[in-house]
Amino acid sequence: MNETQITASVCTIGDEILIGQIVDTNSAAIAQALNEKGIRIKRMISIGDDREQIISSLERELADNEIVIVTGGLGPTDDDITKPALARLSGCTAYRTDQGQLAIMKEILHSRGLDLLDVNLDQAKVPESCEVILNRRGTAPIMVFPFGAERFGHNARLYSMPGVPFETIAALPDVMDDICRHFSCGTITHRTVMTFGMAESALAKRICKWEHSLPAGVHLAYLPNTLTGVRLRLSKFGGEATENERLLEQLFSELKQELGDIIYAESDSNLQTETGRLLAEKGLTLSIAESCTGGMVSHLITSVPGASAYYLGSVTSYATEIKEKLLGVPKDIVEKYTVVSPECAAAMAEGVRRLTGSDYSIATTGNAGPTAAEGQQVGLVWVAVSSSGGTQTKAFSYKNDRTRNIERFSAAALHLLLTKLRAENN
Amino acid sequence: MNETQITASVCTIGDEILIGQIVDTNSAAIAQALNEKGIRIKRMISIGDDREQIISSLERELADNEIVIVTGGLGPTDDDITKPALARLSGCTAYRTDQGQLAIMKEILHSRGLDLLDVNLDQAKVPESCEVILNRRGTAPIMVFPFGAERFGHNARLYSMPGVPFETIAALPDVMDDICRHFSCGTITHRTVMTFGMAESALAKRICKWEHSLPAGVHLAYLPNTLTGVRLRLSKFGGEATENERLLEQLFSELKQELGDIIYAESDSNLQTETGRLLAEKGLTLSIAESCTGGMVSHLITSVPGASAYYLGSVTSYATEIKEKLLGVPKDIVEKYTVVSPECAAAMAEGVRRLTGSDYSIATTGNAGPTAAEGQQVGLVWVAVSSSGGTQTKAFSYKNDRTRNIERFSAAALHLLLTKLRAENN
Repeated sequence: MNETQITASVCTIGDEILIGQIVDTNSAAIAQALNEKGIRIKRMISIGDDREQIISSLERELADNEIVIVTGGLGPTDDDITKPALARLSGCTAYRTDQGQLAIMKEILHSRGLDLLDVNLDQAKVPESCEVILNRRGTAPIMVFPFGAERFGHNARLYSMPGVPFETIAALPDVMDDICRHFSCGTITHRTVMTFGMAESALAKRICKWEHSLPAGVHLAYLPNTLTGVRLRLSKFGGEATENERLLEQLFSELKQELGDIIYAESDSNLQTETGRLLAEKGLTLSIAESCTGGMVSHLITSVPGASAYYLGSVTSYATEIKEKLLGVPKDIVEKYTVVSPECAAAMAEGVRRLTGSDYSIATTGNAGPTAAEGQQVGLVWVAVSSSGGTQTKAFSYKNDRTRNIERFSAAALHLLLTKLRAENN
Repeated sequence: MNETQITASVCTIGDEILIGQIVDTNSAAIAQALNEKGIRIKRMISIGDDREQIISSLERELADNEIVIVTGGLGPTDDDITKPALARLSGCTAYRTDQGQLAIMKEILHSRGLDLLDVNLDQAKVPESCEVILNRRGTAPIMVFPFGAERFGHNARLYSMPGVPFETIAALPDVMDDICRHFSCGTITHRTVMTFGMAESALAKRICKWEHSLPAGVHLAYLPNTLTGVRLRLSKFGGEATENERLLEQLFSELKQELGDIIYAESDSNLQTETGRLLAEKGLTLSIAESCTGGMVSHLITSVPGASAYYLGSVTSYATEIKEKLLGVPKDIVEKYTVVSPECAAAMAEGVRRLTGSDYSIATTGNAGPTAAEGQQVGLVWVAVSSSGGTQTKAFSYKNDRTRNIERFSAAALHLLLTKLRAENN
């Protein structure tokens, strides 16, 4: 075991993962949180709802790592397997009811108009050997089992978290706080920038010379995402914090020189947040006309809390008549250029701006697949952005499945809006 | 080791998984394919790009399982770690170039306008100890390493697949064919039903007596999802296929008796697909008016391929003036009842139906949080569904975060529509 760096293991429990019924997204979320604290993950494992296997697997992970994070196996309908297995692993058979979690549980159930059932009461019971971190979003508490050096040769803590992704993610900060209180995590400094419009491989090629010249201890991570573009993260492990900040600031300046034109945010963010911030700051309003994106652009804009300050509304015009009737797209534009055209996109953007009286508008029209009407190309979208400064259109073409195409189209539309907003409001 | 059922282990190799940079979707795809053949997966593991760890981990998996499927570690920019590790594991140091894969590689590179590089040639080289399954979608071949009983106490085969998801998925049928030729796979039969409107714990309580009476070898899985409701899956392992089908059919009839009112689909499905199917079948059209769901309902409806056959469009009226101006919600309704009211929801649903001429419409108005205007309640939504048969409204209340509330509101709206559609079209 490497004594200089704390290591961790992430373990998922549940037959539903082993039969491929669900994709495990918790492990990646936990890994990101640990990675940010400079904790190295040695392994991730997924095992079934089998008591013997749970105990033997977790013993092995605890022997190899200071931190073991377990998710799953604690739902109200899960068979009584995980909790007794953890109790036995910790050498404890007595249980207590955690009053803090019980109170939260009652509140959650009450707010959903549900009765408190015996299965819920069971969820609030924990082995006496564990400490509890409250799960504020769900009914099952987070259990923390501490192990002294006499057991595994080093101090270790096992965290048992619920498997429901939004509960796991909501509880992660509290778990990370506990980890940082009990282990010296070492320093780690990050600097994140958001890029849009260039694929990961092309990006890597563009900055490969610079990347190879990065000083020792500095790592560059590429984090591609359909909706946000590629997130680039510079990390410096070890060393002194102020010194690291200075170094990363210097490297960030160099990176900006290399990539200036495709960076849209100089910290962790996304397109809808950046767009919304600028609209709110300038007191501007936005409306949207969507065809092939079918509501996704509007959904992204309204996923930001406080969007009502700048967002007026949208028209999703799936049928051609709606484009004509509601948005006032002239019939001859559709006839002459078809609905998938820069002319139609522009008319939609101008139409929704006129209709709502907004300062800015976005329009999308294209085909996300899997099949296209005669003469249409699957994966092609025309985006228009409009303001009193004029209307711009741009085509984007992708070769993904329907779901992914809708996401890419929507991100492209938001990026075009952000570019226009910045050009006209600086 | 259980002699009666073949078991498998799925192993992912790559530092990018351990730092949470990517979510591993390959393992679930592989698990589904194995599960369909009745092969039980004992464990999934993810390990880093570390030769010693790869060898020791895979040895352990091979000792425990007949089938080990490895993905990742074979890309052109991956360091030379995985392939030499597999060669050493198989006790072989000599390499050969696989001519079949080389030909495919040349074709792929040519079609992308790329030159054949040394790194590509290296990809076509495989240890002489392995058999090759051609990778028709990418450059790295699938390597199959057979191990006799003298090595691990049982015959075993290790499959090394590329990590790029679409290559993995494309190659899976060939890998499964190879597995079925070399191992006698058992039977497994599934039956899935979709429920909506009852939490997992309440559902479990309602059917707990029935669940406890399930015959041996039959398993019931609860799979909750914000957007689809709780999916219930009955599985029967082993036995004879026709007999199993008959048994599951019988159990499914019993389950229907217990849960009839909350089952909305008798096979794996979701609300937007069921809604869309009925609309298409009956030749009916739909429009949507969204406030707090901000485009999500429209996004869900249009996520179904072919939605343009029945979906006309929507108005997202975030601003009150849009509700009045576009949807024709009377000013006095807003003043008298506020925008979060059954009266406003009904006026929105009727307004969008009038505006678009659709047969059916949905409207949502509420507050998804995190903060609410004065007098409003966070997490409360009023949904209305309208047709020539009349307009119904219903309130739903949730206590989740903004993202989750928007999803729950949207699912509730789709379920109310589906209920009305079925009541009026049977």
